[in-house]
Amino acid sequence: MKYSFKNDYSEGCHPNILKALLETNEHQQNGYGLDDYSIEAQNLIKKNIKNYDAKVYFVSGGTQANIIVISAFLRPHECVISADLGHILNNETAAIEATGHKIISIPTEDGKINPKQIQDIIDTHQNKPHQVKPKLVYISNSTEIGTTYSKNELQILSDFCMENELYLFMDGARLGNAIMAENTDLSLEDIAKYTDAFYLGGTKNGALLGEAIIINNKNLQPEFDFHIKQKGALLAKGRLLGIQFLELMKDNLYFQLAKKANNHAMKIKEAFANKGIFFYTENFTNQLFPILNLAQIESLAENFDFYVWKKIDEQNSVIRIITSWQTQDIAVEQLTNKIQEF
Amino acid sequence: MKYSFKNDYSEGCHPNILKALLETNEHQQNGYGLDDYSIEAQNLIKKNIKNYDAKVYFVSGGTQANIIVISAFLRPHECVISADLGHILNNETAAIEATGHKIISIPTEDGKINPKQIQDIIDTHQNKPHQVKPKLVYISNSTEIGTTYSKNELQILSDFCMENELYLFMDGARLGNAIMAENTDLSLEDIAKYTDAFYLGGTKNGALLGEAIIINNKNLQPEFDFHIKQKGALLAKGRLLGIQFLELMKDNLYFQLAKKANNHAMKIKEAFANKGIFFYTENFTNQLFPILNLAQIESLAENFDFYVWKKIDEQNSVIRIITSWQTQDIAVEQLTNKIQEF
Amino acid sequence: MKYSFKNDYSEGCHPNILKALLETNEHQQNGYGLDDYSIEAQNLIKKNIKNYDAKVYFVSGGTQANIIVISAFLRPHECVISADLGHILNNETAAIEATGHKIISIPTEDGKINPKQIQDIIDTHQNKPHQVKPKLVYISNSTEIGTTYSKNELQILSDFCMENELYLFMDGARLGNAIMAENTDLSLEDIAKYTDAFYLGGTKNGALLGEAIIINNKNLQPEFDFHIKQKGALLAKGRLLGIQFLELMKDNLYFQLAKKANNHAMKIKEAFANKGIFFYTENFTNQLFPILNLAQIESLAENFDFYVWKKIDEQNSVIRIITSWQTQDIAVEQLTNKIQEF
Amino acid sequence: MKYSFKNDYSEGCHPNILKALLETNEHQQNGYGLDDYSIEAQNLIKKNIKNYDAKVYFVSGGTQANIIVISAFLRPHECVISADLGHILNNETAAIEATGHKIISIPTEDGKINPKQIQDIIDTHQNKPHQVKPKLVYISNSTEIGTTYSKNELQILSDFCMENELYLFMDGARLGNAIMAENTDLSLEDIAKYTDAFYLGGTKNGALLGEAIIINNKNLQPEFDFHIKQKGALLAKGRLLGIQFLELMKDNLYFQLAKKANNHAMKIKEAFANKGIFFYTENFTNQLFPILNLAQIESLAENFDFYVWKKIDEQNSVIRIITSWQTQDIAVEQLTNKIQEF
Repeated sequence: MKYSFKNDYSEGCHPNILKALLETNEHQQNGYGLDDYSIEAQNLIKKNIKNYDAKVYFVSGGTQANIIVISAFLRPHECVISADLGHILNNETAAIEATGHKIISIPTEDGKINPKQIQDIIDTHQNKPHQVKPKLVYISNSTEIGTTYSKNELQILSDFCMENELYLFMDGARLGNAIMAENTDLSLEDIAKYTDAFYLGGTKNGALLGEAIIINNKNLQPEFDFHIKQKGALLAKGRLLGIQFLELMKDNLYFQLAKKANNHAMKIKEAFANKGIFFYTENFTNQLFPILNLAQIESLAENFDFYVWKKIDEQNSVIRIITSWQTQDIAVEQLTNKIQEF
Repeated sequence: MKYSFKNDYSEGCHPNILKALLETNEHQQNGYGLDDYSIEAQNLIKKNIKNYDAKVYFVSGGTQANIIVISAFLRPHECVISADLGHILNNETAAIEATGHKIISIPTEDGKINPKQIQDIIDTHQNKPHQVKPKLVYISNSTEIGTTYSKNELQILSDFCMENELYLFMDGARLGNAIMAENTDLSLEDIAKYTDAFYLGGTKNGALLGEAIIINNKNLQPEFDFHIKQKGALLAKGRLLGIQFLELMKDNLYFQLAKKANNHAMKIKEAFANKGIFFYTENFTNQLFPILNLAQIESLAENFDFYVWKKIDEQNSVIRIITSWQTQDIAVEQLTNKIQEF
Repeated sequence: MKYSFKNDYSEGCHPNILKALLETNEHQQNGYGLDDYSIEAQNLIKKNIKNYDAKVYFVSGGTQANIIVISAFLRPHECVISADLGHILNNETAAIEATGHKIISIPTEDGKINPKQIQDIIDTHQNKPHQVKPKLVYISNSTEIGTTYSKNELQILSDFCMENELYLFMDGARLGNAIMAENTDLSLEDIAKYTDAFYLGGTKNGALLGEAIIINNKNLQPEFDFHIKQKGALLAKGRLLGIQFLELMKDNLYFQLAKKANNHAMKIKEAFANKGIFFYTENFTNQLFPILNLAQIESLAENFDFYVWKKIDEQNSVIRIITSWQTQDIAVEQLTNKIQEF
Repeated sequence: MKYSFKNDYSEGCHPNILKALLETNEHQQNGYGLDDYSIEAQNLIKKNIKNYDAKVYFVSGGTQANIIVISAFLRPHECVISADLGHILNNETAAIEATGHKIISIPTEDGKINPKQIQDIIDTHQNKPHQVKPKLVYISNSTEIGTTYSKNELQILSDFCMENELYLFMDGARLGNAIMAENTDLSLEDIAKYTDAFYLGGTKNGALLGEAIIINNKNLQPEFDFHIKQKGALLAKGRLLGIQFLELMKDNLYFQLAKKANNHAMKIKEAFANKGIFFYTENFTNQLFPILNLAQIESLAENFDFYVWKKIDEQNSVIRIITSWQTQDIAVEQLTNKIQEF
């Protein structure tokens, strides 16, 4: 069987989590997120982001987190601004629109948004009340193509949003990878400071499932749990999410796993670079987008699974290689060896 | 610490599941429900219900199952009929209405619906197009108060729905308990035969989370997966649900666990009955609703957790005792001993 | 052809309106409610209710007014409380639920709501976040069965709602009839004082179409026009609504028309009463609900159209007789003559 | 006061309509669209389109028509394809998204859609079920920039939609102008033949308000009236819409009015062309988009109202001139005189 570099959710979970599930299995706990583990995990996250006034909620997946946050924050006539590569735009079966809200798309090269682009949207949405009101800026970090925001970029975006009464919400399905990127200066604490809300992705970084939604803006906290329940996301055995985030947050495991995934990717990146191969975007996280010719793609495909992401021309395509906390050293070695044969 | 009889989701999961999670943890699998375990579990369920044309989907919870099924099946002007005790009416934060559909409530004593009651609703909804169109009958088995449908009752209901072009959907959050009730003659196969769709609850019968939605009506199958994704219910690591249902369905574990829960309840029921205590409803599943006086309630509350469900008068209230697959023999013994002291 | 007492929208509009439409027909005006007539009509209404801080919006019908007000005021997890006879519950094809909000029904005899009933609902909706949050109280004046609120009743309801952070919204499809009822002491000014929002029905009181939504609560005013547009209710030629309300509000025409309709009804009421006929509810507005035997119903049906509203027993039913601003004196005389023959 | 060329809904309605309203005013009629006038108007429209199996419904405005048609036709996971200039995309406050459906935008120069563009969208929406399912193609005729579809273009589009199981829906807010354009060969009958549904705009062509929705596809007809009611669009005095369409459809008044508006525009077009002025799009309907320099714009603005539609560069902008059935000859003459002074 081929080794898969298709995504970062091909395996189960970190062994510590399974161990904790075993150890706690027989303990009776309150349901619906009121269990001891969830409460402890929430406290650990608040400590980690150094914001004890934040509210932390656990849900089972990223689309769910996006649906709940966005529909809870917006009034019916308000809409979302997203980069064109945003997961909510292309990969969630119009889940946001299904809650009644339009998403305005910003064309980007790198999947990131800047204030100038948002200002353009505000300027072209002045025909009130015939146009929707832009109200929430959705960003991803890392983005769908593995790029990240610097501290300065996020701060400027945050200031702009505040001045324009826009909420800033960060999709952190791969937040660990973003924070541990070797080129970043952005910390979890910064993110808690500069966003109204964000989530910390567990599914793609060592958990069986689970995202931790963190609401920093106090005005957006009240009655948020109603929305979780209404959208079908309040697990009876919330302990399953609590236990996992407790393990991930302990001793920085979360960040170690993300670092490991990034390191794997950087090794592979180096192998491609050594062969003079270009990338669609330069990345320091766990996603790589090398531009290969058909022969190279075929050669890799003999032993590895990956997505052919985008056709460039008749001879060349971009492929996507994703590493994870669980990617095996040996698989990385086999892959880099194969690349060296190009 | 007091032993809890508050609900059937106080503990983790059956050890077989943890074992299987451990064993499969490192195997790379496709995401989003296309993993080997999910496919195998789906096949096992189809075999179990003896309907190989059914479609089986796994989601993480009951509210989610209700949202997805109902909103996928109905057009905007169509509505749901439910018994007044239906979970969708009182315990799901108007999740169904949030998808745009009204629920018409039928007053009941036992939480069950019969054709006569549905006919009344049809008769009083003839002012077209000024009233919603009743289109889906939602029933629970076992119900919120632990009662169950007999084979004959379900068959009559099914015939009536078919004649009246109504869909029949069964909420099976506690379907194992219903099927294993000593007074029932209804099999899983019957349910697959007489409903358009139903779900098999895992969360309350040994799983960490998970419900298996089974769609029997072929007209309602196409493109159902879009709805799962749109409502945020398609887990990236669908394997987590597949592995669990695979374990539960193997060697009838699912039914054994439900039987065990029922047996515990029956022992406790006998203890109450021996003391001449009446019940709010007669039950053969894992929920008991004894009517106790305040002194009795206080006495039990010293050692056990349970819900005071409904006040009868100044001196008496109905309490709710729930057993589960995981309820300890010793706890049942302690409880029955305590009851004998009344 | 039989004369119809079926409803109060069987004819066109008051001649003054047609005259004004003719006179203004060629004047160029701004679209979408920014025409001179709409602005003047808004000012006249504010003057009439003695609240210059109110905001006034015109829409084409009652269901539309209910949809827009309720969906604009509520967050997704909040719901409406309504009397069981409320128009939104039974006569609007689940239009409110289609915007995502549940309606909790209060069983009533007279179609009216009191604080005790609301308190009961609050008390039984404390299982947060598993139940919806009651947030808006919807009342009708006059009600679907022609009853009205006294000043004292409305004041008490208003105080209760304020204390419990509930919005109070009055459906005024027949508000003119309510205010002009001979037994009422409630003025338009009172209504503006005691409700967060209400609407003044034009369709059933002399207009071709149109309801004037008045928002008294300043917190609920911002960006309300976006909701009107989004729900398809912002007429390009808003002048049509402005002109009509301008005519209706001038020289108290609106109230004269309602008074005329009520007077007609009172004459018919007297005729029934003189024959010892009982009523389902005692009414002082333009709707009557006499309880007649089959022979009496058949006799009336020879010459008049009306609804048989509710069966009482095999021999008797309640019929509904509605008068309007346009009901002809001669028709009332013919009807009362017929009644005298009973 | 300046004469306005800002839009085609600045005045009231055609005198025939006022006359008919006067004459019918006192006739008692059934409510909610079951009046004699509505039925007669529906028949007249069916005769006009030569499709007696069509269903015709009247609603008060274009946004309302779009909301009702689209939300009635689509299942929750299905979406709309529209040209980027589509009214539903930019001018309706996300009314379609508010019913839960995404709109995919096609970049266009002329506001029109062709099969190639739709095929591209189908091709890029194959990641099922992670992406929405394109299901309805929304086109406008004439478009927002006054262009029109030829018979051949519509036929090709219709064939393509049928092959790909897509519904084809035409927004006909300015359908009269499109059909009466001197360069078109497309008839009303053709439109009824090649679309699943379309609407005939009254508001912008002589009515006070009103659009006639025509559903040609028999599968989409059942229970459509429920959706009209649910969205708040079923007027109690439906006669108001019936009477208007009856007058407009009689003796081809509808088409004469549109022709008159087009003729006015063509005269103005000629005046601009004579001065060597270019247009943003070439138009044969009632909208003109000349590209003027600032001095020219200022000069026109002294005597006329119009929109500055789009800035081209620092010295030039596109303005929008709209004529209507009611545009005065003298105003056209004054405008063309002014243009000749350029």
